[in-house]
Amino acid sequence: MRVHQRVKRILRHYESDNPGTKANLARILTHGRLGNTGKLVILPVDQGFEHGPARSFAPNPDGYDPHYHYQLAIDAGLSAFAAPLGLLEAGADTFAGAIPTILKLNSSNSHATSKDQAITGSIGDALRLGCSAVGFTIYPGSDDCFPMMEEIRELAEEAKSVGLAVVIWSYPRGGNLSKEGETAIDVTAYAAHMAALLGAHIIKVKPPTDHIEQEDARKVYEKQGVDISTLSARIAHVMQSSFAGRRLVVFSGGGAKGTDALLDEIRALRDGGASGSIIGRNSFQRPREEALALLESVIDIYRGKA
Amino acid sequence: MRVHQRVKRILRHYESDNPGTKANLARILTHGRLGNTGKLVILPVDQGFEHGPARSFAPNPDGYDPHYHYQLAIDAGLSAFAAPLGLLEAGADTFAGAIPTILKLNSSNSHATSKDQAITGSIGDALRLGCSAVGFTIYPGSDDCFPMMEEIRELAEEAKSVGLAVVIWSYPRGGNLSKEGETAIDVTAYAAHMAALLGAHIIKVKPPTDHIEQEDARKVYEKQGVDISTLSARIAHVMQSSFAGRRLVVFSGGGAKGTDALLDEIRALRDGGASGSIIGRNSFQRPREEALALLESVIDIYRGKA
Amino acid sequence: MRVHQRVKRILRHYESDNPGTKANLARILTHGRLGNTGKLVILPVDQGFEHGPARSFAPNPDGYDPHYHYQLAIDAGLSAFAAPLGLLEAGADTFAGAIPTILKLNSSNSHATSKDQAITGSIGDALRLGCSAVGFTIYPGSDDCFPMMEEIRELAEEAKSVGLAVVIWSYPRGGNLSKEGETAIDVTAYAAHMAALLGAHIIKVKPPTDHIEQEDARKVYEKQGVDISTLSARIAHVMQSSFAGRRLVVFSGGGAKGTDALLDEIRALRDGGASGSIIGRNSFQRPREEALALLESVIDIYRGKA
Amino acid sequence: MRVHQRVKRILRHYESDNPGTKANLARILTHGRLGNTGKLVILPVDQGFEHGPARSFAPNPDGYDPHYHYQLAIDAGLSAFAAPLGLLEAGADTFAGAIPTILKLNSSNSHATSKDQAITGSIGDALRLGCSAVGFTIYPGSDDCFPMMEEIRELAEEAKSVGLAVVIWSYPRGGNLSKEGETAIDVTAYAAHMAALLGAHIIKVKPPTDHIEQEDARKVYEKQGVDISTLSARIAHVMQSSFAGRRLVVFSGGGAKGTDALLDEIRALRDGGASGSIIGRNSFQRPREEALALLESVIDIYRGKA
Amino acid sequence: MRVHQRVKRILRHYESDNPGTKANLARILTHGRLGNTGKLVILPVDQGFEHGPARSFAPNPDGYDPHYHYQLAIDAGLSAFAAPLGLLEAGADTFAGAIPTILKLNSSNSHATSKDQAITGSIGDALRLGCSAVGFTIYPGSDDCFPMMEEIRELAEEAKSVGLAVVIWSYPRGGNLSKEGETAIDVTAYAAHMAALLGAHIIKVKPPTDHIEQEDARKVYEKQGVDISTLSARIAHVMQSSFAGRRLVVFSGGGAKGTDALLDEIRALRDGGASGSIIGRNSFQRPREEALALLESVIDIYRGKA
Repeated sequence: MRVHQRVKRILRHYESDNPGTKANLARILTHGRLGNTGKLVILPVDQGFEHGPARSFAPNPDGYDPHYHYQLAIDAGLSAFAAPLGLLEAGADTFAGAIPTILKLNSSNSHATSKDQAITGSIGDALRLGCSAVGFTIYPGSDDCFPMMEEIRELAEEAKSVGLAVVIWSYPRGGNLSKEGETAIDVTAYAAHMAALLGAHIIKVKPPTDHIEQEDARKVYEKQGVDISTLSARIAHVMQSSFAGRRLVVFSGGGAKGTDALLDEIRALRDGGASGSIIGRNSFQRPREEALALLESVIDIYRGKA
Repeated sequence: MRVHQRVKRILRHYESDNPGTKANLARILTHGRLGNTGKLVILPVDQGFEHGPARSFAPNPDGYDPHYHYQLAIDAGLSAFAAPLGLLEAGADTFAGAIPTILKLNSSNSHATSKDQAITGSIGDALRLGCSAVGFTIYPGSDDCFPMMEEIRELAEEAKSVGLAVVIWSYPRGGNLSKEGETAIDVTAYAAHMAALLGAHIIKVKPPTDHIEQEDARKVYEKQGVDISTLSARIAHVMQSSFAGRRLVVFSGGGAKGTDALLDEIRALRDGGASGSIIGRNSFQRPREEALALLESVIDIYRGKA
Repeated sequence: MRVHQRVKRILRHYESDNPGTKANLARILTHGRLGNTGKLVILPVDQGFEHGPARSFAPNPDGYDPHYHYQLAIDAGLSAFAAPLGLLEAGADTFAGAIPTILKLNSSNSHATSKDQAITGSIGDALRLGCSAVGFTIYPGSDDCFPMMEEIRELAEEAKSVGLAVVIWSYPRGGNLSKEGETAIDVTAYAAHMAALLGAHIIKVKPPTDHIEQEDARKVYEKQGVDISTLSARIAHVMQSSFAGRRLVVFSGGGAKGTDALLDEIRALRDGGASGSIIGRNSFQRPREEALALLESVIDIYRGKA
Repeated sequence: MRVHQRVKRILRHYESDNPGTKANLARILTHGRLGNTGKLVILPVDQGFEHGPARSFAPNPDGYDPHYHYQLAIDAGLSAFAAPLGLLEAGADTFAGAIPTILKLNSSNSHATSKDQAITGSIGDALRLGCSAVGFTIYPGSDDCFPMMEEIRELAEEAKSVGLAVVIWSYPRGGNLSKEGETAIDVTAYAAHMAALLGAHIIKVKPPTDHIEQEDARKVYEKQGVDISTLSARIAHVMQSSFAGRRLVVFSGGGAKGTDALLDEIRALRDGGASGSIIGRNSFQRPREEALALLESVIDIYRGKA
Repeated sequence: MRVHQRVKRILRHYESDNPGTKANLARILTHGRLGNTGKLVILPVDQGFEHGPARSFAPNPDGYDPHYHYQLAIDAGLSAFAAPLGLLEAGADTFAGAIPTILKLNSSNSHATSKDQAITGSIGDALRLGCSAVGFTIYPGSDDCFPMMEEIRELAEEAKSVGLAVVIWSYPRGGNLSKEGETAIDVTAYAAHMAALLGAHIIKVKPPTDHIEQEDARKVYEKQGVDISTLSARIAHVMQSSFAGRRLVVFSGGGAKGTDALLDEIRALRDGGASGSIIGRNSFQRPREEALALLESVIDIYRGKA
């Protein structure tokens, strides 16, 4: 693994971390077709937990097999593969060392009666499975947001002490938030900022709309003339809100959509300075060859070729 | 104990586990009349906790004595015997080494005022009693589902670290679920999938009906044409939802029923690819000779002889 | 201390226990006038916590002094003395080794606003006070029943690991239970069974009435013709529900009553196969000489002399 | 420090305690003008936490300074000084060894929205500050009473293991208790008894009125003719309820009142057999010289001189 | 670092602390332009967590970068810099040793649905980041006040044991408090007093108004003629309520306001004996040169030059 200057510059932003954590961040940033570009694309497969197996895998039944996803992420030249405990366990030995893995430490499901998640993995699990990082979801706005923050605080401290990187999925919902507010620009930038303050190395948020949810925020956005007119401008604002770009921020692809729409969105993300994407259903619910082609296009965009 | 290729192939699916856990899975898979077939039948005796002693044992009063069940499981050539703490303690020395045992770690009862269970055993208990595995019930859908998942997460991590296998009873109930939904095909496949994601080695669910509970799921089942028309087809779908058959899934026999109906159901389970059955009331509530005959028939079906 | 065959046979039922716990059970079963008979009578003095000092001790003011109860239990030749922390502390040195003691680990009081108890003692306390056993109350049916079960589970595991015996007071109340149901035969047998499943060495329940509380249970009692017509028959059913007599079960004397009524009840308990009695208010609220005479009569009944 | 027979007799009542705890009890019982009399007077300064600084100290502004209280307790020849963490920290070095100190481990305040207290100190704090004892308030009757009892249980076990003495402030309130019931004789005697059962070495309650709160208690008081007609008789009943006088019980002075009324009350306490008094606002809210004179009078009463 | 007599006198007030904690207090008190004056000015940057990034940093976008704030605090010659975990992590190495830092251990946000904060940092974090102190917010009056107090109690004990200083932000709100009451003089003095009793080395409160919130307090303020007529008088009362000036108390600047108004307020704080100020939005939301000029003026006031 050769580490280029571009990656070294990024690693220097993580100035409080020990060499173990930096090495794991470097593993992700030097792996795959985006290796050493400073960009990254991650395959997450937690939809089975969130939405159930049929809704996740029936469109492309190969996806019922955990090995399918490992292989897809490897063959597509992605930067890392993220999944809950059982799914990583089912391929951890076969694919040991083949791609950096991220153990998702908490999970919700579509039967849930609260805006919360269950902790379903541990730092010890991540270590025994050879993971490079752990992932954790917080729901800013939720009545359970404080306990969720306290959980990731404790897990992140432990992760950093053993040289793992920390990825925070910051997904506003619940409490006083409107449905539209969940992807509002003020709420999304705030969500990314809180993830950064919680000590995340990599932050995952959704691409924001130009809706502004909180009145006190609206006044400032308008008075200061913060540009939120285009997706690229909004992405730039989210990156700025993540310690002026000192933190890696990746954006989810959201629900399944057409190829053209998806690639247009990726270009806007790239133009706004996003660190990369995290693409689940839009990749593994297509037939493998289509998925590989799509991911190649995504990577090409981040490599500046499209 | 000779371990056949068929069992070795199954063990290879548990690729993250240490030799201790694989050895305990092998103990269950090589024991009894189904030894080395890759199939298993388990005797569970937790009904005394769930429904009380009279409802469980008055029909066949020999069952008040814990030794009766140990002996029944041994004489019937079953794969394992599962029970709560006190019941295992009452025979652990007399029957030490005679049959693999599974300590049920949590229990509910018919006076309970919430859809939850109390933790009534520990990993330390399982070790001192010489068990091969621990069992734990989750109630997907219940308001207490997240805490239950967090309990088994912690217990499973500890179990795996000391070489025990983990069996999850995944029984949907409570919350927004309708009574019919508790055994709906979408809910059952989802319940099995979540147990797999939680890291279970063996999953226990109920045979599903063709009811579909969640609207978002119905759309996918219909659009993708998932076959749920017969019990065998539904079992195959549950197996597929359990990491494409990489996990052992056993099905409960449900309430007491006639012998013919039960055996017909077992054949459907077998034809759908089920790993086996877990049969409680249908065995120990009959006179011993009848029970032995019934279990012989069940085993014959799984051995492909009936 | 000589241990007779009758006691050795009882100890063999505790087949998972270490020699330390068996020795402590043996201390109780070989002590006092019922030593080596396999029967036991215990003096419990937790009424001061449950009902207050005046209601407990004003009828016989000597009882305000903890030493009085130690001495009463010793002079009456009882098997053991059970009390909360502070009361045992107040006499533990003076009476060290003079009678087996049981530290009651939780307590309620008549100001309580929930059907629960506070944990008021620890295993460490029991060890430093030289106790042979610990006692714990659960309220089957109560909204707090699951946490109470989890508390005794953890305490019992620790107790067994350091060679103490475990006594569970299983007193149904709260939740959906009617007042009459608290002593119903189905509820009492179930309460004893759950205590056994929780790993109790000695179970304490109240003598049951012939009321049946739960409809599902009634059907079974009637269909199977379980005999609950006399107190002795009901006691036999409770013993059967306690692992077919593999566990010691003692019955409380209930509220203060006349001597004849009490002795009649003791005879019925004996005839039903009860392991013994636990008699509080009926002994210490009488003048000392009356109490000694009464306890002598009770012991004589269990010795088969009356 | 010479320990007289009177104190040794008291120490013999604490028969389960280690020499460390007995030594600390002896430090309190041999210190000050009441040293070796078997009586004690304690200065508590937790009113700043309970009622705020102005209500506590504005009447005598010297009291804003923690050193003032240390010096007052020393100069008045009191037995011990009790205060919350920060206040003791502010003088612990200056007055090291000058007077036994009691760290109050929990505190409420006049903004509180529940009948509970926050834990604000630890056993480790008490040790590093050189304290002889720790203090803890329980609110019998409160909805939070069980958790409070469990807190002091755990803290008391730890305190005793490191040789500290335990003082329990037992102040009934909340739940079903009427305002008048908080100082009722039945409730107060019960509160003292529960503190004794919880393992307190020293118990603090309020002087009780002749009101009886609970109907079941009233019947017993009337039937048994318990004398509650005078304050002295009621104090005697509280002492009796504290293990027949085997535990030290001190009584609070209550709200600020006139000197004569206060001294009359002290005489009644003494005549009833009280172990002593704990006097806060009535001492530190007066000018220092008045306070010293008052405390001298109080001590003279307990010495039998007035 | 030379430590002047003035600072040594202050350190003597912290008489229970170990040399490690005193050294860290000395680091803060000897650093910057107020070094060795006994006064201090702190830059806090937790507004991003509390109000979001745009409301905090859009007025002066340089503030999105954590390094900006470190550098501002250093160049302005401030005493210390306080921020949440992620923000300190982002500059801890670059600015190691350049200015004392305070890790804010808990945080709220403008989506919160309760008057509480999440714990977002640990003592271990503070140590690995080279901090001199930890900060923690309590909300006196809030329904969550007791848990918050218990959290800081535990954290403060750990902090002191490893030589860190403890800063408590005591901000009344919630429960029965009116909006006006949050800055009432009685409530503010009480809030400072409770922070002192909890063991804080440095206390942060808001400048109080002359409103009195609690009736019982009003009576005392009026009867005793406590002077609350001017801000300086009120500050003096707060200092008095903080152990008669034995504890350092700094006052926040509140919302952004004009320079003249701010400096007038600082003069009143100084005249009342305040230990110093903690100024966030009023400094970092202005252009850097303006902020430096303002902070120079503030420091000059505390140095007695203006």
